[in-house]
Amino acid sequence: MQEGSSSDFATVDHDRAARCGHGEVIYAAGKLPHEVVAIAQELLERGSSPCVLATRCDDAQVAAMREAFDGKQPIEVGERCGAVIVGTAESKSTTPIPIVTAGTSDLKVAEEVALTCKALGFEPYPINDVGVAGLHRIMGRLDEVRAGNCVVVVAGMEGALPSVVGGLVDVPVIAVPTSVGYGASFGGLSALLGMLNSCASGVTVVNIDNGFGAAYAACQIERAVLRGGRNPENGSG
Amino acid sequence: MQEGSSSDFATVDHDRAARCGHGEVIYAAGKLPHEVVAIAQELLERGSSPCVLATRCDDAQVAAMREAFDGKQPIEVGERCGAVIVGTAESKSTTPIPIVTAGTSDLKVAEEVALTCKALGFEPYPINDVGVAGLHRIMGRLDEVRAGNCVVVVAGMEGALPSVVGGLVDVPVIAVPTSVGYGASFGGLSALLGMLNSCASGVTVVNIDNGFGAAYAACQIERAVLRGGRNPENGSG
Amino acid sequence: MQEGSSSDFATVDHDRAARCGHGEVIYAAGKLPHEVVAIAQELLERGSSPCVLATRCDDAQVAAMREAFDGKQPIEVGERCGAVIVGTAESKSTTPIPIVTAGTSDLKVAEEVALTCKALGFEPYPINDVGVAGLHRIMGRLDEVRAGNCVVVVAGMEGALPSVVGGLVDVPVIAVPTSVGYGASFGGLSALLGMLNSCASGVTVVNIDNGFGAAYAACQIERAVLRGGRNPENGSG
Amino acid sequence: MQEGSSSDFATVDHDRAARCGHGEVIYAAGKLPHEVVAIAQELLERGSSPCVLATRCDDAQVAAMREAFDGKQPIEVGERCGAVIVGTAESKSTTPIPIVTAGTSDLKVAEEVALTCKALGFEPYPINDVGVAGLHRIMGRLDEVRAGNCVVVVAGMEGALPSVVGGLVDVPVIAVPTSVGYGASFGGLSALLGMLNSCASGVTVVNIDNGFGAAYAACQIERAVLRGGRNPENGSG
Amino acid sequence: MQEGSSSDFATVDHDRAARCGHGEVIYAAGKLPHEVVAIAQELLERGSSPCVLATRCDDAQVAAMREAFDGKQPIEVGERCGAVIVGTAESKSTTPIPIVTAGTSDLKVAEEVALTCKALGFEPYPINDVGVAGLHRIMGRLDEVRAGNCVVVVAGMEGALPSVVGGLVDVPVIAVPTSVGYGASFGGLSALLGMLNSCASGVTVVNIDNGFGAAYAACQIERAVLRGGRNPENGSG
Amino acid sequence: MQEGSSSDFATVDHDRAARCGHGEVIYAAGKLPHEVVAIAQELLERGSSPCVLATRCDDAQVAAMREAFDGKQPIEVGERCGAVIVGTAESKSTTPIPIVTAGTSDLKVAEEVALTCKALGFEPYPINDVGVAGLHRIMGRLDEVRAGNCVVVVAGMEGALPSVVGGLVDVPVIAVPTSVGYGASFGGLSALLGMLNSCASGVTVVNIDNGFGAAYAACQIERAVLRGGRNPENGSG
Amino acid sequence: MQEGSSSDFATVDHDRAARCGHGEVIYAAGKLPHEVVAIAQELLERGSSPCVLATRCDDAQVAAMREAFDGKQPIEVGERCGAVIVGTAESKSTTPIPIVTAGTSDLKVAEEVALTCKALGFEPYPINDVGVAGLHRIMGRLDEVRAGNCVVVVAGMEGALPSVVGGLVDVPVIAVPTSVGYGASFGGLSALLGMLNSCASGVTVVNIDNGFGAAYAACQIERAVLRGGRNPENGSG
Amino acid sequence: MQEGSSSDFATVDHDRAARCGHGEVIYAAGKLPHEVVAIAQELLERGSSPCVLATRCDDAQVAAMREAFDGKQPIEVGERCGAVIVGTAESKSTTPIPIVTAGTSDLKVAEEVALTCKALGFEPYPINDVGVAGLHRIMGRLDEVRAGNCVVVVAGMEGALPSVVGGLVDVPVIAVPTSVGYGASFGGLSALLGMLNSCASGVTVVNIDNGFGAAYAACQIERAVLRGGRNPENGSG
Repeated sequence: MQEGSSSDFATVDHDRAARCGHGEVIYAAGKLPHEVVAIAQELLERGSSPCVLATRCDDAQVAAMREAFDGKQPIEVGERCGAVIVGTAESKSTTPIPIVTAGTSDLKVAEEVALTCKALGFEPYPINDVGVAGLHRIMGRLDEVRAGNCVVVVAGMEGALPSVVGGLVDVPVIAVPTSVGYGASFGGLSALLGMLNSCASGVTVVNIDNGFGAAYAACQIERAVLRGGRNPENGSG
Repeated sequence: MQEGSSSDFATVDHDRAARCGHGEVIYAAGKLPHEVVAIAQELLERGSSPCVLATRCDDAQVAAMREAFDGKQPIEVGERCGAVIVGTAESKSTTPIPIVTAGTSDLKVAEEVALTCKALGFEPYPINDVGVAGLHRIMGRLDEVRAGNCVVVVAGMEGALPSVVGGLVDVPVIAVPTSVGYGASFGGLSALLGMLNSCASGVTVVNIDNGFGAAYAACQIERAVLRGGRNPENGSG
Repeated sequence: MQEGSSSDFATVDHDRAARCGHGEVIYAAGKLPHEVVAIAQELLERGSSPCVLATRCDDAQVAAMREAFDGKQPIEVGERCGAVIVGTAESKSTTPIPIVTAGTSDLKVAEEVALTCKALGFEPYPINDVGVAGLHRIMGRLDEVRAGNCVVVVAGMEGALPSVVGGLVDVPVIAVPTSVGYGASFGGLSALLGMLNSCASGVTVVNIDNGFGAAYAACQIERAVLRGGRNPENGSG
Repeated sequence: MQEGSSSDFATVDHDRAARCGHGEVIYAAGKLPHEVVAIAQELLERGSSPCVLATRCDDAQVAAMREAFDGKQPIEVGERCGAVIVGTAESKSTTPIPIVTAGTSDLKVAEEVALTCKALGFEPYPINDVGVAGLHRIMGRLDEVRAGNCVVVVAGMEGALPSVVGGLVDVPVIAVPTSVGYGASFGGLSALLGMLNSCASGVTVVNIDNGFGAAYAACQIERAVLRGGRNPENGSG
Repeated sequence: MQEGSSSDFATVDHDRAARCGHGEVIYAAGKLPHEVVAIAQELLERGSSPCVLATRCDDAQVAAMREAFDGKQPIEVGERCGAVIVGTAESKSTTPIPIVTAGTSDLKVAEEVALTCKALGFEPYPINDVGVAGLHRIMGRLDEVRAGNCVVVVAGMEGALPSVVGGLVDVPVIAVPTSVGYGASFGGLSALLGMLNSCASGVTVVNIDNGFGAAYAACQIERAVLRGGRNPENGSG
Repeated sequence: MQEGSSSDFATVDHDRAARCGHGEVIYAAGKLPHEVVAIAQELLERGSSPCVLATRCDDAQVAAMREAFDGKQPIEVGERCGAVIVGTAESKSTTPIPIVTAGTSDLKVAEEVALTCKALGFEPYPINDVGVAGLHRIMGRLDEVRAGNCVVVVAGMEGALPSVVGGLVDVPVIAVPTSVGYGASFGGLSALLGMLNSCASGVTVVNIDNGFGAAYAACQIERAVLRGGRNPENGSG
Repeated sequence: MQEGSSSDFATVDHDRAARCGHGEVIYAAGKLPHEVVAIAQELLERGSSPCVLATRCDDAQVAAMREAFDGKQPIEVGERCGAVIVGTAESKSTTPIPIVTAGTSDLKVAEEVALTCKALGFEPYPINDVGVAGLHRIMGRLDEVRAGNCVVVVAGMEGALPSVVGGLVDVPVIAVPTSVGYGASFGGLSALLGMLNSCASGVTVVNIDNGFGAAYAACQIERAVLRGGRNPENGSG
Repeated sequence: MQEGSSSDFATVDHDRAARCGHGEVIYAAGKLPHEVVAIAQELLERGSSPCVLATRCDDAQVAAMREAFDGKQPIEVGERCGAVIVGTAESKSTTPIPIVTAGTSDLKVAEEVALTCKALGFEPYPINDVGVAGLHRIMGRLDEVRAGNCVVVVAGMEGALPSVVGGLVDVPVIAVPTSVGYGASFGGLSALLGMLNSCASGVTVVNIDNGFGAAYAACQIERAVLRGGRNPENGSG
């Protein structure tokens, strides 16, 4: 048999926190509700993290998680996006991570960004509904946008907002295309291609609707900043 | 045999000016050089228009046009885009038609817009290299952008500029996606999809690199304005 | 905090009517019913427009709008397309805007065109079921098609109707591809590509099923005509 | 070893005329010039057909064919499309097969249609440059279009012409999309999709630029008509 | 107003039988049930055809048709495909039209082919489940396949059957790709592309799942055969 | 009539076991429940195989199979994937066929692999949840992976696991892309393309989610090994 | 520094023969000519294989290889496909590996299959130009096709040949789609999709034009057969 | 006229260094050689940066740059990728930025990453040819990979390397898909999709072949680390 603890259907990666800075996160889609619970329990019991995050839970999976953990652990559920946090994350920083959204229809994905940041110990700071069709909205909040060490920008349709933000800040911009739109948005493809072809320098992109991935990348940047760098000049790293 | 004048290979549409307001324009791609010249000659001789426009001429076609018409007719050649005007257009209006481009790599398409406007009797007004990565560039020229009865916006890559312009003006915006870009721009597809999914209201779109079509549509708008409308309230039309 | 009035989830763009000629329109998809209502209320209260338009409302959103506004404001609901008008638009012109549809299956989208025109103060004029497989249908109604300052053409499947109309009129043609069809129509892609590649000059295109966008663009043209142009020749603008 | 005559690189299908009504046709693309010649020689020597057709020959292949057969056999070369006929086809019918093209840029493909018809013993009848942007052109030649037992329609860009023709005739319409166009024509995809989604009943479609296939199908229809049908009512077949 | 009879939502094409050989067929998708009934009634009353065909009816549309016509007119419903015939077609020929299907999952589309043939007055002849993975199945029924003046071949997945049939018969082959398959069949795209790229000469193709269109084209061929051709050699046409 | 036994809707291929080594397998999608049962009964009665496999059964089809065979034949149902085995396969080998899955969401497809192996007489050996984001998981089980004559690797998302496995074993690797993922996974396209472009030599690929096909190919390899080859060196074959 | 021998630009994988059964093969595309030579020299000097294979060499790379190795090592160059073998492979088996091609235009890819087999120590056995449009060609050579432990099938256009072969043999079929075709073949996509959706069981597929990969997989199967399996029943492995 | 210095064709963004941390970079594609030189001169003269970077220069553009600046300014040209640095960047850090490439064919893109890092004042650290088909190569260099504050990973084909690296490090991973590959790599699409769907958390992606963008994003991260963060906890920002 294989090394490590593992149920019949899963091989939980208990070493991930040591390697990557944070333990395994459960991607619930396609798993049976009891499987999501079982993996969450194993992760909590093995103690690689004080809290567990499961993303993309449907109603049955959320119900199973509530039934398993309510009253035993703090539990927070994102009603729009289906993310579930069990346990309490250790706060690593109070620096805000700006999460800029183009429209109110993008809030589902932005919620996944925010909950992931919280689960990883960082502070989400939402700046909502400031798309490019009314530029004064984002221009009026530039100080808030510039307050972070990086910015997450969430947009559907043509996905233009990261290009505009990228031209206004001096920090990394992580762009999340959303499936908001219809017709030739092709499920978020238009926003994805727009962001990949951004004329603003240094915008990087994650998968369509992948709020989790964007938040995780943002938190990796925050951790590098907190650590002070693996920098020969200052001897750290 | 069919009605009207026609060579072996073409059925020239001499009635088009009466129906559509401007005579047939020659799309040169895929035609032999002598065919382009022959169609141009027939159009000029039948007199449906004082000048003829041929778009997308390659070097051989341009040379054939020069050889046929130099010294007989005024001839203007767009060196970037291969559009050729033979004869002199009758000026219909001196209202500027703003042609806004995102980057200098879009100038090839913008030149086709400008030459088409001239051939149809209208005044192109270029506003170049004002893409969204440096918003102050377009913001600093808003008065010029707002001086037209419509605006043509030319952009490649993510094609975000029409959304920004569309949110700043109260006239129709005609967006031209260009094939500027590489990789996941897929030959202009990213800009095309971006423009079709624009969050700004009322942006309409033409084919990738179709400067001619955008200019033609803009001139149809200008003509409607000049005519004063087919408006029961003022008895015209 | 940001400037202007804004709820938790939205940053309403009250300045849009001044910039663009008409206030913000609510794109309901992806919003919670109470959010649609709240934005509509804020728009009406701030008075930037005597009426509000919400597009793509589902049954729950329509019900919430009816509950919020019935008896207080006039309310009109497009049963096919889910557009909702609350309040009464100020009539700006009685010039008809011809809305030509290829088949009866396109009526859903044509209804969104018509309601948007009404919400913006213009008169929709439907010409239905005149697709190219029976040319005499459109030929027999040419006078009506030519009565407008622009034409909106709505078609699915191969999307050929705008090319035919574009060759018969001397005004701008705005083409709306619909998702009517199956198989290789790929959700309206065939009609979209057909319209973008139209052999008729000056056809411009909006997103698949985007009746709203086509109507908005048509109304911008009508407004330019009403205004008489920003034309140095006549001193306006 | 396998049955039948065959060189090292090819297994010529000498039985095809018996099965399908016409011998094998050589698709030259990707073959070395001497291979094209060798297959042609074997087909002529085995006598399954009085003439041989090779399509899509490049300059080197055409030159090799000329060198091999000039002075020995009649040879006809399509200068635009690279089709080569060696030998003389037996005339099977003088009924014209109408070949309708939308624009002069489609002539390359139409030439392949015409030469294939000739090689199979039928009469091509070209009707050129009658695209839908000027409907009077096709309307003025309806008698000629209706003179055949079927119609081949060749069009690029949006590929609308087969829908219009399909609504005007009572015979099978075979549509050939061409790669004429640019940008979102995606090498003929727009015309292909347009034709597959035609609102006219009974239009069938071949591959992009496949003039050969359309002509072959048309000739199969002509042969069925000549034969009088495999019809229990008249005892034939 | 326009010529001819027309309800509010439709412009019925009563002239189509004269032009195309058969009256208008109702494509039910996207129409309201009462609209389908109303168009059927108008077609029957105006007498352009003794029977009416409606394709792609859903359960509600079928029920409305039954309620409107049961007891008044003969009515036949295709349970798999949703085609409905009201009235009795005039038999035009008893020549069988072979309809060859690759697998039993393709029967839904084959049923639409068969019912359309019947509605147009021709005899469908099904040859089912003879796909290329067991070649002896099609080889054992070649006489039946060769008994028609044309062949309709229905296949999903890789769509290989038309190529095999096309190499075995001397009549036109009309190929219908079906959406049978999963994964990289992309809703029938694999079969469509396979058929368009068939190595067998003269295969023509209709849209994915378009049994109606294939049958219509086959019947046009049968009609041309019955008519004896518009052939100068025999003086007809 | 055609040769062999066949119901109205199907032409069962009873000769397949002789030609291909295993009898026909029923692809249930698109078939009516009673059709699935009827084909299964005919296959069992004609005795070409001691057991029958039906894949992709939905709930109604599973119920019909249970009703038809429960108490008469052993029946095994894959609850995740809908595969049904009726009867008992003859064991042909006890060599394990390793089935490696990247994540627990891939278990549905892996179950189809396993049940197909069993129905064909071979032993599935699952190695689950060992994706590349935690390399130690697959590295810790290399002995098990290397114990087979071939390996089946099942992965969604980016489909990287076959490349890693392919670089670690000296046997054929059969890769199954799954539709696990969202957004730009485009229903499994990302995994499919990843596997087709694998930098590891000799990885072959089946359709998205095609566990059946991968297992069938693996069993063909096992059968070749059992047979000892058609090898001139050892006189077999 | 990293372990093992490595030049500036490459990290040669000298351990691959031990892990995978054959040493690293050089994919020449995108490498400078001297880089291809340098890697080949390092592989030969380190002795992990008696011969080296480089695929996809252009003229300059072939010339550099000839200059470096002519007179020192046996060298064989595939003139069509650009594969180069330096040194002499150790023969591992004389069992033929049937390589079946649909048409002569597929010979370029088939040559890469054959040369790869030779470089890996196995015997290629070409069966050319036996596509499905003339079924008797493949049927007449079935004994040769069935003589191997597996079959490689190479086809472009619709890619139907693997389905036909898969239904006729009881060994694994490895399908290679080629880019032969035009228009809607989309560079081999049609053949690729056709093969992935094959109705024949157990066909596996490699990348478009990937003759190397197919041959490598076939040789892995042959090696498994030679080894007699890792079979608990016979104690080997 | 617009604010700021600007030539006829360009509107140089001299304010970008202040807003974004680095001045405008010239994307040379589609610009005339003298235009590239003129923009470079204006950027150097206005002093917003001690050096200028132009990417994607072709031979003519490189020659023009050499002619303009050789002898006046230090100039460095990337021979593979066409990037040109004029002037000397101010060194901002000596922390290595690891640039990991999968194969030697990816070196062209990796060179663009490296030169961009240099132009922005950071140290590139190449780790070449360590793709996943030989895992020991990347495993043997993990210390070097982990020495940075972020990692850039460059890979073509299936693009699996970022997933493997992402599972082994605790810093941000920026993935660059390359167009290395053929057939179903579709110009880098396979690598792009693979990276967007990475199962490793927190991988972000740039456009195909966009070495510049990846490097720019990496340098933004390095700058954030150097700055020590805009962190309320330490009072900076």
